[in-house]
Amino acid sequence: MTAAVKLQPPGYEALNPQSAMQYMARLKQIADALGGDIARWDCEEVGDGNLNLVFIIKGTTGAVVLKQALPYVRMVGDSWPLPLYRAHYEHLALTEQFLHAPTLVPKTYHYDEPMALTVMEYLTPHVILRKELIAGKRFPNLATHLGHFMAQNLFFTSDLALTAEQKRQKMTPYLGNIAMCKITEDLIFDEPYFKAPMNRHTKGLDDLAKSYQHDVPLKLAAQEMKWRFLNAPEALCHGDLHTGSIMVSDTDTRVIDPEFAFYGPIGFDVGMLLANFVMAYFAQDGHADKPGARDDYKEWILSTAIATCETFISEFSNLWQSRAGEAYQTRVISPSENPAALDVRMKQISNDVLGFCGVEIIRRILGLAHNIDFEMISDHDVRAACERKALMFGRELLVNRQDYPTPKEFVAAIKEL
Amino acid sequence: MTAAVKLQPPGYEALNPQSAMQYMARLKQIADALGGDIARWDCEEVGDGNLNLVFIIKGTTGAVVLKQALPYVRMVGDSWPLPLYRAHYEHLALTEQFLHAPTLVPKTYHYDEPMALTVMEYLTPHVILRKELIAGKRFPNLATHLGHFMAQNLFFTSDLALTAEQKRQKMTPYLGNIAMCKITEDLIFDEPYFKAPMNRHTKGLDDLAKSYQHDVPLKLAAQEMKWRFLNAPEALCHGDLHTGSIMVSDTDTRVIDPEFAFYGPIGFDVGMLLANFVMAYFAQDGHADKPGARDDYKEWILSTAIATCETFISEFSNLWQSRAGEAYQTRVISPSENPAALDVRMKQISNDVLGFCGVEIIRRILGLAHNIDFEMISDHDVRAACERKALMFGRELLVNRQDYPTPKEFVAAIKEL
Repeated sequence: MTAAVKLQPPGYEALNPQSAMQYMARLKQIADALGGDIARWDCEEVGDGNLNLVFIIKGTTGAVVLKQALPYVRMVGDSWPLPLYRAHYEHLALTEQFLHAPTLVPKTYHYDEPMALTVMEYLTPHVILRKELIAGKRFPNLATHLGHFMAQNLFFTSDLALTAEQKRQKMTPYLGNIAMCKITEDLIFDEPYFKAPMNRHTKGLDDLAKSYQHDVPLKLAAQEMKWRFLNAPEALCHGDLHTGSIMVSDTDTRVIDPEFAFYGPIGFDVGMLLANFVMAYFAQDGHADKPGARDDYKEWILSTAIATCETFISEFSNLWQSRAGEAYQTRVISPSENPAALDVRMKQISNDVLGFCGVEIIRRILGLAHNIDFEMISDHDVRAACERKALMFGRELLVNRQDYPTPKEFVAAIKEL
Repeated sequence: MTAAVKLQPPGYEALNPQSAMQYMARLKQIADALGGDIARWDCEEVGDGNLNLVFIIKGTTGAVVLKQALPYVRMVGDSWPLPLYRAHYEHLALTEQFLHAPTLVPKTYHYDEPMALTVMEYLTPHVILRKELIAGKRFPNLATHLGHFMAQNLFFTSDLALTAEQKRQKMTPYLGNIAMCKITEDLIFDEPYFKAPMNRHTKGLDDLAKSYQHDVPLKLAAQEMKWRFLNAPEALCHGDLHTGSIMVSDTDTRVIDPEFAFYGPIGFDVGMLLANFVMAYFAQDGHADKPGARDDYKEWILSTAIATCETFISEFSNLWQSRAGEAYQTRVISPSENPAALDVRMKQISNDVLGFCGVEIIRRILGLAHNIDFEMISDHDVRAACERKALMFGRELLVNRQDYPTPKEFVAAIKEL
């Protein structure tokens, strides 16, 4: 009996394309929508992540996605077990996010707890955003969609919208998502800052990789962000909101894969997403077929990143006016005092955004899990040059985050590199 | 059927001295320790708090205390219901605190969940500290004991001592203590800052009571502390650590009544306690039988308050060296980087201490629940003068808390008044 088999609890069985179709055929309503006759269905396993099986099942009249958690990290194999309960948190978060931004998440049709699987909307012709950013494609609505997704979800799960009782009840189940939080705790905040066995980096970055491990202000800032991660359950965070967790078509945007969902700082998701735009920006020089070929596109990425933050800020600020939760009650803070109160909170959020942005950039270049933005740059010298700029910007943000109170300073700093 | 009766869940019955003795007689082991024969027992109800019945049961060979929660706020009557489940949190917290500071809490002998009662050690000749501070008594070990109690409990329930999993599991049940947290949320952070119906203040303070309700920096600072209360589950806090929750003899100190226990900022308990020393200090002029008669004693209170904080800081700093929890792991922060890392955390803690100290002072003078330190000053002009100094100091601490990084600045500010 292998370790992987032992990890399978009663009622769980990892599916293959054939058994996935058989499973789906038993869900009468969904099977009917696919066009009844299973013999004419087609199923493909397309999961390119590390943690899950993803099947696309196409019938004659429709298609759905079946996502099933695996009891181990795929990349590493069954030596790194990972609890199936993460499917529970993904389902919980998807359901919550659907309440606040129904057009920006996939619809879910069916959830099976013992099988750790969700049947959901097949998004077509959507592609993972990260791949499109490498290909150089533009999406005019992207910033508005992503800013809206974050503002809605973060506001409506916080003490600004909920009573203290509602908030505590909503956050309580997420305290069980321990294994997924542990990945973040280890990989994002700790491992890049010491000689962790699984760290890796591009040749040519030895000097930074080494110096960051002895850079006291940097390490203290990273640990401060970890303290915030552990000790600031302000709102329901997606928990893994990078450009690989976003699917896009020309006009549509969907945020997927919230299995890292946790109650954390309002600035967490915003910072993680911003970091991934920043990395896409710095990677462009490595994707240009001739020098300068991606210069306009770099500007588009940067303006999209900034517009995403600005949409978040402006929507969150508008929602602030309608707050009816435990914090900043209108019986205490009058309308004329609103702007000053909002300003205090936005400063804290902004500080968190930049801090989490910084740690995310650094860990994607010096830690275990890298981005294809950089990984697909085949020339190691070019890749190292791009990564070096990103690393230096990440450090600057993290250590001196109070120096960037608005997007203006942020843009100036990124352009200096 | 009255509201109070309706509030009584199955299995609950409020005791009286007679039924309390009968209840105790059924607990064989405890009854034996009291000296078997119930006919020779004596029982007195001594609860002077607002929320509970407290019986002292004396037998021929021993005595115990029986504390039972009431399903409403006693002072107000059955129109203000308060869930009995708070006895559960009190028991949970007492058990936890006993692990970390066994000599500084009462021993518990028996807990009955449906009856919401705890049988615990009868402390004698202990008296409530607040009364002794009004009487002008000194306790040479007090600062050491209280500093130790806070350092031990706050450190060992935090991410500095626990794994992330242990910490989340330990904090989860406390998220249910909603009604008690709601009292803090309303009475401490909100009501003093608007015309709440139950607010009251001494005649002669109308000007401050009114101006504080339109004092934007003050209100924003109070709301910032509320945000910290709601969103910073750093450690298990007693939740109501004032001088009325401490029993003392000449040599012994016990912290009682943790029914407000919650996971909150490390600085919360320290700040609340400090506030109550500060109020005891400012109240002394009202207790002096002739001008200056309490001057030496004021110095003793102040030095005890400062020594309590210093003991907390020095013990917490020592414990920091032994940390083995999720935060600030030694694989990341080396011994030589320890002092800088500790400094970052202590600054945040200190900021919280002063902020919570400020809100506690203000709410005890302008809100619903006042302290006998001031209430026992019968001359209203004298009382108002004492309270005014405390109010001004509270505001200064709260709004400008970053200006008081060490006890030195704190002492200088208090002496200026």
